[in-house]
Amino acid sequence: MWPLDRGSKKPLFEQIVDEIERRISYGEFPPGSLLPSERKLAEQLGVNRSTVVLAYAELRALGMIESQTGSGTRVTKHKWGITPKHTPNWHRYVEGGSFLPNLPFLRRIREALQKNKALIDFASGELGADLSPVKEINTLMDENHYTEYLGYDNPQGFVPLRQALVAYLEHYRGIQTTESSILITSGSQQSLYLITQCLLAPGDAVAIEDPSYCYSLPMFQSAGLRLFRLPVDDKGVRPEEIRSLYKKHRIKMVFLNPNYQNPTGTVLDPERRVELLHIASELGLPIVEDDPFSLTDYHGTPPQPLKSADSIGSILYIGSFSKIAASGLRVGWMVAPHSVVERLADARQQMDFGLSVVPQKVAAQFLNSFYFRPHLDRLRMDLLYKRDLLIEALQKELPDLVSFSVPQGGLHLWCKIGTEVNDHKLLEEAIRNGMIYVPGSVYGSDSGYVRFTFARPKAADIPLGVSKFAAALRTVLG
Amino acid sequence: MWPLDRGSKKPLFEQIVDEIERRISYGEFPPGSLLPSERKLAEQLGVNRSTVVLAYAELRALGMIESQTGSGTRVTKHKWGITPKHTPNWHRYVEGGSFLPNLPFLRRIREALQKNKALIDFASGELGADLSPVKEINTLMDENHYTEYLGYDNPQGFVPLRQALVAYLEHYRGIQTTESSILITSGSQQSLYLITQCLLAPGDAVAIEDPSYCYSLPMFQSAGLRLFRLPVDDKGVRPEEIRSLYKKHRIKMVFLNPNYQNPTGTVLDPERRVELLHIASELGLPIVEDDPFSLTDYHGTPPQPLKSADSIGSILYIGSFSKIAASGLRVGWMVAPHSVVERLADARQQMDFGLSVVPQKVAAQFLNSFYFRPHLDRLRMDLLYKRDLLIEALQKELPDLVSFSVPQGGLHLWCKIGTEVNDHKLLEEAIRNGMIYVPGSVYGSDSGYVRFTFARPKAADIPLGVSKFAAALRTVLG
Repeated sequence: MWPLDRGSKKPLFEQIVDEIERRISYGEFPPGSLLPSERKLAEQLGVNRSTVVLAYAELRALGMIESQTGSGTRVTKHKWGITPKHTPNWHRYVEGGSFLPNLPFLRRIREALQKNKALIDFASGELGADLSPVKEINTLMDENHYTEYLGYDNPQGFVPLRQALVAYLEHYRGIQTTESSILITSGSQQSLYLITQCLLAPGDAVAIEDPSYCYSLPMFQSAGLRLFRLPVDDKGVRPEEIRSLYKKHRIKMVFLNPNYQNPTGTVLDPERRVELLHIASELGLPIVEDDPFSLTDYHGTPPQPLKSADSIGSILYIGSFSKIAASGLRVGWMVAPHSVVERLADARQQMDFGLSVVPQKVAAQFLNSFYFRPHLDRLRMDLLYKRDLLIEALQKELPDLVSFSVPQGGLHLWCKIGTEVNDHKLLEEAIRNGMIYVPGSVYGSDSGYVRFTFARPKAADIPLGVSKFAAALRTVLG
Repeated sequence: MWPLDRGSKKPLFEQIVDEIERRISYGEFPPGSLLPSERKLAEQLGVNRSTVVLAYAELRALGMIESQTGSGTRVTKHKWGITPKHTPNWHRYVEGGSFLPNLPFLRRIREALQKNKALIDFASGELGADLSPVKEINTLMDENHYTEYLGYDNPQGFVPLRQALVAYLEHYRGIQTTESSILITSGSQQSLYLITQCLLAPGDAVAIEDPSYCYSLPMFQSAGLRLFRLPVDDKGVRPEEIRSLYKKHRIKMVFLNPNYQNPTGTVLDPERRVELLHIASELGLPIVEDDPFSLTDYHGTPPQPLKSADSIGSILYIGSFSKIAASGLRVGWMVAPHSVVERLADARQQMDFGLSVVPQKVAAQFLNSFYFRPHLDRLRMDLLYKRDLLIEALQKELPDLVSFSVPQGGLHLWCKIGTEVNDHKLLEEAIRNGMIYVPGSVYGSDSGYVRFTFARPKAADIPLGVSKFAAALRTVLG
């Protein structure tokens, strides 16, 4: 992004001066805005800090930027013309919006991954390129000429995809539904977002698993919801606690991920399922069931969703292609009573006017193709192989320092470190060593937990990544 | 969607009974939920009302549904099992969310278009299939094998598309920028949504054009913003009024569509542009510039955007493929200071985890291809032709009853009816006659205005559609 030319006769610091001047004049760094610190910019560009010090000195001499101790280096405010001109105080706008930013750990992880493409990535909760059906999808796109009209799509989503999903849901998930009860969304994420925006209001109480992926989403807080925790043990959540939360706090909705829960990998116990559905129907309480991982079951016997036993319509069921095929397609779905689907489709029109037809068509073709089932079979075996690689490496490198349950499905391993450790220091040290993961506290747990996504790195990198992690842990523990 | 088989030996009413029973058991119509009225369902299915009356009577006899005068027909509540079970009160959830539904007129239009595919559509604000580069895009997709890894995309959007846009923006829009100042969004709509969610907070005052597309978006109200009007005359908005709104209400942002404004077709006057930028810089006031229509300019000399003269970074610039290529790709972009782009990209990750890579790749290929410029040339001429067809038809059919300014770009004609008329009755009568448009009040105007999108219907349907409109107007005026 910064086109430094190390072969040029022009010194590097002058190239930096020119590039910053260019970006200031383009409005990327408006007057008054903060520039990166000298240390940070040097790191980003891979140059010595002294080079950036020189460049900033030059820009200061030109009157383009100003530095003040404690408040960093900023673009000069009144540079252009004689009459005073004011750039909007973008900083205040950026800080002032009602929607909350992502958690600092997640922003740090994103930044690190963008800066260093060589990091061994146990953090991104998705399939690696080796597990995605990239070839199959390319073949389908080659074979099927794209001939649809590219106008606005049906607000609920592309009809042939919804038709394909009716068959998929019955065959693979034991769910009977019709296309008019399905809403296509941008992954599970958009389903969760639409539910928090359209079916709940600020001040409403909801229950979520502890730990849970939901804790990594400040959008629950942005929507003004009061969150109450349902601890997850090795059999999932305990239904009785839902009843007691309902009595105490009048919770209006429960968010669950019953099969291969993210991050713990737990499967909700069959008896608890019966009890849970009983309580939901007794209280008239809606349950949001997020079910992205079931078909990754390593033994080919995926647990059924709650939705398949939901006789009275208590459950909003969410599924997705992201964890079983390709996160970059951005295709997910919700099965819900028709009035709910209509309401969410209407709101989504105002937010983004619906999904592109192109990936929806690709997804429908893939579901209907003879590639789909063999892909799932291969995926299961590859995930099992990668899981075992991770477990072996952890047992070899850190036999006494970590403990975990062995998951039977999903993309993640949830790992407890057996001694007190500073989450921040450990993550930074791991990044320095060349690997990255997600600290468990992102999902609401105490410190000292780690989520490893073994689906993402290449198989050959898993032992290497673990040994880098082990070295980081030993350094931090001293 | 309702698979009635008119050739079957099973009577239609029994088929309806079976289908409703099926949908109730699937949870599409949960216990307690409202069924369509007999009249409405008959209309939807294209059967006599008496057929639906019979079906509902049978369902009542089976104890599946209950009817009460005044509250319609509902699915029976306590049908399943002996212990009382309660479906969540979905009605209350659907009504209770904080995000507001679309305007009744817009929901009515969508419903009518879904029900009757033969309606001549002057309502959908997009290009018809004849104007979209469907062939060109298909050719590009055939020629370029899809080979990317389908993982989560960069939060700001697909890098090659942002690179293509840097060249496009400089060449076609006179805007100099870099790829790190660009955010790819799901059309202009998502840019507007992100701005209202992330840079503004409930209670903030903003100024929008009157009339304006923005009035058709309850999302401004959902975000708790106070809206103030900037009347649009034949030269656009008057900058002085921005200053006075700032003084009176401390407006925090101004939303403008300076080129071929939706719905009026107006172009902001050059002197007013200078004054506007001056006021914005004097007040440090951010301007959101929505610029989807400029390249449709019928004479090939598109007006420049405000952003091209924005020396201090006051302007958030929004562009889109929707009105110049294909709305169904869902590809738009925002050019903004880097801190703003970062903030919005971060929030968008929580909402939908970003756009699918597939349409972004298609859009980049199209921008970089030798098809792009010839497509724009053809589009301009086709739009001019369709505009003239509409104007001729209106002058022929309703010479004394309508008046309008002739737009020089854009997809719409903004039309004033010269006598008092009931907007509701006129729209319903037009739909009955087989054509549809958007009543001007959707955009915040008084009653008696109409927005005709001439880009959408086939050329051959334009005169026919206008004569249907004229007949409707004469009927309503009596």
